[in-house]
Amino acid sequence: MNVITSARNPAVSAARKLARAHGRARDRSGGFLLEGAQGLQEAMDAGARPVTVFATPEAAARHQALLDAARTAGAELRVVAAPLLAELAQTVHPQGLVAVVRSVVGTLDRLPPSPRLVCVLVEVGDPGNAGTVLRAADAFGADALVTTANSVDLESPKAVRASAGSLFHLPVIGGAGWTELVAALRGRGLALVGADPHAPDTVERAPLEGPCALVLGNEAHGLPERVRADLDHLARLPHYGRAESLNLAAAAAVLLYECARRQREAAGGR
Amino acid sequence: MNVITSARNPAVSAARKLARAHGRARDRSGGFLLEGAQGLQEAMDAGARPVTVFATPEAAARHQALLDAARTAGAELRVVAAPLLAELAQTVHPQGLVAVVRSVVGTLDRLPPSPRLVCVLVEVGDPGNAGTVLRAADAFGADALVTTANSVDLESPKAVRASAGSLFHLPVIGGAGWTELVAALRGRGLALVGADPHAPDTVERAPLEGPCALVLGNEAHGLPERVRADLDHLARLPHYGRAESLNLAAAAAVLLYECARRQREAAGGR
Repeated sequence: MNVITSARNPAVSAARKLARAHGRARDRSGGFLLEGAQGLQEAMDAGARPVTVFATPEAAARHQALLDAARTAGAELRVVAAPLLAELAQTVHPQGLVAVVRSVVGTLDRLPPSPRLVCVLVEVGDPGNAGTVLRAADAFGADALVTTANSVDLESPKAVRASAGSLFHLPVIGGAGWTELVAALRGRGLALVGADPHAPDTVERAPLEGPCALVLGNEAHGLPERVRADLDHLARLPHYGRAESLNLAAAAAVLLYECARRQREAAGGR
Repeated sequence: MNVITSARNPAVSAARKLARAHGRARDRSGGFLLEGAQGLQEAMDAGARPVTVFATPEAAARHQALLDAARTAGAELRVVAAPLLAELAQTVHPQGLVAVVRSVVGTLDRLPPSPRLVCVLVEVGDPGNAGTVLRAADAFGADALVTTANSVDLESPKAVRASAGSLFHLPVIGGAGWTELVAALRGRGLALVGADPHAPDTVERAPLEGPCALVLGNEAHGLPERVRADLDHLARLPHYGRAESLNLAAAAAVLLYECARRQREAAGGR
């Protein structure tokens, strides 16, 4: 077995660059990093396409079936010394395995032609929140999820983990410019409904039965003024208790559920 | 200003014991720890009763108005040296202030006599999840939240932070024995509805219009068999996409919303 020990190895060097680029604006052509055998297995089950799999000699021996499957899916296997592997990983315990996976986050041309429900995250900052919202969007049948510029990277390790495979299940668009996004959503006949805990109207009054884009803002600052100005409706969830609002991921899940429920009901319970 | 520098000071020693006890079964008579000025301010706004506030000399000078309010609310102020304060804190940056607050988590006798909606967490393990569910239970008007034995401590720092004040808004019961809990819920006329992503029925078929207890299981293992055996219904959220399930906090928020919505609808849209 040829074990790579040098950081100057081209494959290792490219992956190290990816590891450093995570969380910032980056060239997606190089793919993104997934850590751990379970993470890779789940991602491959969900449709991820591995490009390169780095494994320590121990991990390569332990996860032979997974590595065979990755090779069948087109991946190259690189056995690397443990200290080199640790440099590729963002978690403390990468369990001896890090994979470079083909990027799935695209640009606005990936928006489907006739969506019923699109989830838009504006300047969302927490990767766990973003991944959890993506998972809920998938569960409730959204046709796409879009993040705007200055949002967290949906292919950062925490976001990928929180999405639990959903990253590979529906069209995901990253870093969209707001003006272009509004044009694309309106061009597809979607009503733009923003979530705002201080809106006068609750969701009952928003036209969630029809094709719509649910627009959610930053965890701390909500929706920026220039975004609000372009929206058709602002709506809040009804609150019966004393909590002023839900956290972002919980609010998104409820809104996506309510949209899906009302759309199915309007379509005759299909 | 008398600055405490010794860990043998009785107040410091008692608080250190609390810091070590967090997350495990513990005597609640000593209260629990809150960190940071913002955390204490929010908790006091929500109704928390501080017993002792520890602050470094710098923090005491910086947060004078807050400390005055805490004293008016009955708290004793102890100015401590920075290294001592760091030992009381669980976070890396406690910002010079740690408070001992009177415990609000009670036993089953705190369950209201005629609740409409009770949220039950069975062996939930993640404090962030538990706090987020508590916040959603508050938002959607639940009459109480109950955790069973082997669940995470709702007064651990992460749970308190995630609850965003809701810990102080509704009756919270911790460490309930399952048998006693079932008797208490049934005695109050509640239907026991368990959440299970693999249940044959979706929530539409569960009697959420009536008084009910929503029972949610552990993040990884779901509801234990002996708990399921005692439930009246098992229900899942409808899923239209490819995600198999939501994470616990998101699922709980949607179920609590759906319960509240159906109960209001049944009551004539009040």
